Amino acid sequence: MKTQLECIPCFTRQALDAVAEAIDDPVRRETLLRRLLREIAETDWSDSPPAIAQRLHRAIRRELGDPDPYRDVKTRMNRMAARLVPEMRARIAAHPDPREAAVRVAIGGNLLDVGAKTQIAAEELPAHLETIWTHPLRGDLEGLFRAADRARSILYLADNSGEIFFDRLLIERLPAEKITLFVRGAPVLNDATAADAEAAGLPEIVAVLDNGSDAPGTILSDSSEEFRRRFDRADLVIAKGQGNYETLSDVDKPIYFLFTVKCPLVAERVGEPVGSLVAKPSRHLREKDE
Amino acid sequence: MKTQLECIPCFTRQALDAVAEAIDDPVRRETLLRRLLREIAETDWSDSPPAIAQRLHRAIRRELGDPDPYRDVKTRMNRMAARLVPEMRARIAAHPDPREAAVRVAIGGNLLDVGAKTQIAAEELPAHLETIWTHPLRGDLEGLFRAADRARSILYLADNSGEIFFDRLLIERLPAEKITLFVRGAPVLNDATAADAEAAGLPEIVAVLDNGSDAPGTILSDSSEEFRRRFDRADLVIAKGQGNYETLSDVDKPIYFLFTVKCPLVAERVGEPVGSLVAKPSRHLREKDE
Repeated sequence: MKTQLECIPCFTRQALDAVAEAIDDPVRRETLLRRLLREIAETDWSDSPPAIAQRLHRAIRRELGDPDPYRDVKTRMNRMAARLVPEMRARIAAHPDPREAAVRVAIGGNLLDVGAKTQIAAEELPAHLETIWTHPLRGDLEGLFRAADRARSILYLADNSGEIFFDRLLIERLPAEKITLFVRGAPVLNDATAADAEAAGLPEIVAVLDNGSDAPGTILSDSSEEFRRRFDRADLVIAKGQGNYETLSDVDKPIYFLFTVKCPLVAERVGEPVGSLVAKPSRHLREKDE
Repeated sequence: MKTQLECIPCFTRQALDAVAEAIDDPVRRETLLRRLLREIAETDWSDSPPAIAQRLHRAIRRELGDPDPYRDVKTRMNRMAARLVPEMRARIAAHPDPREAAVRVAIGGNLLDVGAKTQIAAEELPAHLETIWTHPLRGDLEGLFRAADRARSILYLADNSGEIFFDRLLIERLPAEKITLFVRGAPVLNDATAADAEAAGLPEIVAVLDNGSDAPGTILSDSSEEFRRRFDRADLVIAKGQGNYETLSDVDKPIYFLFTVKCPLVAERVGEPVGSLVAKPSRHLREKDE
């Protein structure tokens, strides 16, 4: 999915959020925001939004001299998610369709991202999370679970910290023995890395690897050779989050995209309104069905 | 009111809106948006938001080689407003408090601006305008009309095209013989200039002058000597629109600010939520009351 001009104000807002998150001093905030605006003005806009965000966040880390400015945000998100896990697990078990409930929780966990991106207070998030149960869930759940049951090898591409605790609850309802979970190869934004997978106890139930890239999405050409090899061989990819959708939606591969629609351009593309929970098969899977 | 870092993504959005409005060719759109981002990155941020918007829109006009890129938008807004005038005038006359109704219409006319700024379709605006009658109106209406009755000389600072037709309906309920209406000195955004005042028939009922400036607000130091002289001498200033509030709220002068609150930073400052219609006295007037 290519970057549109409409994405540019959103990158500026991301830059502002990052600056506000990482710096207290108003003069340094202004200096960095100016540099980031220049970075946005100069960078190649023909790539996907996560590719541009990757360059932007590299610039942020370089200017801050901090390899992981979202460390505290991620710890906060993980703690909050960890506290919510017992309740979520119980609600999944009590749901008339526990697998649907697990998908809802995993996708809804993507809402934790909102906290990092628009400064919603941590205290407000549990209320936000109630939308997990009320928002429309669009896509093909039956297809997802059927594909998972049939597959020999599944890649599960994680998205954010916090959210990754909820991914675990879905993975528990999938054939975990066939799953390799991939996290980002290095810190970028509040995206999950190996440390977050570990915090969520995921290495106890699946193989956990990193993709070798610091993009807030999955850019194949920027990923490690091992990731690309495993991606090629997998029968099924479960890709969490809008960033993975933006980077993989044009790839010819059996992928289910699980995410909360957060942007009007993505909404138009998937044909579901902003705020929807979606579990959408890739074109490859849709064409196989026809 | 000083520009905050939070204003920067909003300037980027304004730049995008201007580019999308004025240019069809995608390559030229991108080129101009990049130049405008650089302009935002380089410009002095210590001024008020309208001062920065002034520089941004000068750059837009220069790059486009078009002294008035919003000409068509303004014509559209004027036509739409002209069509609404008979209904609005009838509703004011039928209202239990016609003066309050006229203030509501004049402030609500400020909503026409929304069309220019966020691409809301012209067809949707009449529905938007119903909020004139339902949104909370905060401020001191009695104080406004008392001050107008007592004043010897009133400046009425217009804001946008379209809206200026609704200003006329308020001016009809004020002592028009004491009013001088000021419009912008040159085209900027969809702000009203002399041509719009003429389209609304305002020269028939009040003296109409322009302030000599192309700022989307009222920057005294950038205005003509005549404007400053009349501003100094006036007993009362009625300033329409958020731009005039942002540029005049720190000026020691009896001013009533009439506008729709459109931005969270202004909302915080006036103490009313986004979407409110406000008729707020300046500090000078509030301190006189105490």
